[in-house]
Amino acid sequence: MEKKLAARLPPPDIEPARLHEAMRYAVLGGGKRVRPVLVYAAGAALGIPESQIDGAACAVELIHAYSLVHDDLPAMDDDDLRRGRPTCHKAYDEATAILVGDALQVLAFEILARGSGLPEDTAIRLRLIHLLATASGTQGMAGGQALDLAATGRSLTIDAVEKMHACKTGALIRACILMVAACAPDLDPAIHTALDEYAQAIGLAFQIQDDLLDIEGDPQMLGKATGSDEAARKPTYPSVAGVEAARIRMHALHRHALRLLRQTPGLQSAPLASVSDWLVLRKR
Amino acid sequence: MEKKLAARLPPPDIEPARLHEAMRYAVLGGGKRVRPVLVYAAGAALGIPESQIDGAACAVELIHAYSLVHDDLPAMDDDDLRRGRPTCHKAYDEATAILVGDALQVLAFEILARGSGLPEDTAIRLRLIHLLATASGTQGMAGGQALDLAATGRSLTIDAVEKMHACKTGALIRACILMVAACAPDLDPAIHTALDEYAQAIGLAFQIQDDLLDIEGDPQMLGKATGSDEAARKPTYPSVAGVEAARIRMHALHRHALRLLRQTPGLQSAPLASVSDWLVLRKR
Repeated sequence: MEKKLAARLPPPDIEPARLHEAMRYAVLGGGKRVRPVLVYAAGAALGIPESQIDGAACAVELIHAYSLVHDDLPAMDDDDLRRGRPTCHKAYDEATAILVGDALQVLAFEILARGSGLPEDTAIRLRLIHLLATASGTQGMAGGQALDLAATGRSLTIDAVEKMHACKTGALIRACILMVAACAPDLDPAIHTALDEYAQAIGLAFQIQDDLLDIEGDPQMLGKATGSDEAARKPTYPSVAGVEAARIRMHALHRHALRLLRQTPGLQSAPLASVSDWLVLRKR
Repeated sequence: MEKKLAARLPPPDIEPARLHEAMRYAVLGGGKRVRPVLVYAAGAALGIPESQIDGAACAVELIHAYSLVHDDLPAMDDDDLRRGRPTCHKAYDEATAILVGDALQVLAFEILARGSGLPEDTAIRLRLIHLLATASGTQGMAGGQALDLAATGRSLTIDAVEKMHACKTGALIRACILMVAACAPDLDPAIHTALDEYAQAIGLAFQIQDDLLDIEGDPQMLGKATGSDEAARKPTYPSVAGVEAARIRMHALHRHALRLLRQTPGLQSAPLASVSDWLVLRKR
């Protein structure tokens, strides 16, 4: 994945060199690569070769990386540390970090339009762009971040927290699965529905684990400070429902995801099952 | 154009309502609509019906609008006034303005992928996305803004200023023309070349006039303060070459653009000629 991303990022030795360098810093600085892993696991589930989904895996990770750079900005979450290193605006400057996010977002769409590492069928590639765009926009990630900012310091219902998470992180995780499904044009609608439900379940489970780690995790392992949600008075699943209820909800979602995989014939589901285990059991 | 943009922006009465409202504030606040005008003039030149290029006109204007919102941020150009009204981060807040830009950029690509007001041919729509993405990325608008920030307080050669302008404003203006040309798949290559050269000439002429207006224009007419380039110690064409040389260069580019139109058979060139007159003679 690192090599595939590095090859698609603009080289640091051509102009504007500092912007290119900062883009590479933001993307190639480690990270769990949850979204590409999901793309490849879904590809394995549906028998789609990696060479047909490399472009989607890179595009979705670039969208995620841009969102981290912008979310970390002083006007947003104001974070200094990410993956054990200074955040992009700390390592460079705020103006550069804004441009890094802007340029990473558009690079994702350029990759999908250019077409290398993707199906040749132009209708499929348009569908991938449409899926990624809606997942990133106001009914997806950007909208979720707006809801998150608006919720700061306020009390939310559990439903409202789930709605916010479904937008902020869920939509992009769901897009990983739906983009791969779109690469299998003759897909049985029952499989499509099961995969979509799986994606929504693990998307929320993933976010609850993120919020639990922010309360109980090891800052060393995480590469960032914990307690940031509480300090910022952000409503999260554990803060609204309690840590125990959050953990119970997460494991129920996990079991539900595994059940969906088990009950759907025609899926090579082992990789997707492993991913959902990892997302719930991870310590970072 | 206002109606077409309004119909494509998310409604202000659904969640996240404040973000949607801020997006509409940023886009529907007047503006000259130079880029859509160019799209329609190029459409008229090539006999392409408006109904095939409405989507492109909206997409390119949304990219332009997003770039203004982000460029106005305190970490970038730090402008308080735009089109006679508070800039987006002044009317709302910085976090919202960052998200507004992010969401407008992705909406542009969503519109091109969705396809209403565009050619049905999926290969053409992918080509439009590719053209708009490259014009917006590090070899286009975002890269130009990076060069602009890096140049602040430094002295540049005239060539370097032209290169910066070709990225920062030229690439998107060129994309207006190239996107329409891509909607005419059997276009004579000689016409394509002439239109491309026309676009590059008027793109630079437009920027020089912008810089001249910042020196000599009427703040009331412009809806913003003048003298901002000098105050920010930004190298511009007039600051590097002198006001007289800049005006001479602008009119030479204008004449060159008109000559290209006149010398190219098979073009209904009157609307494009009018646009170039307007861009050079405008007072705002």
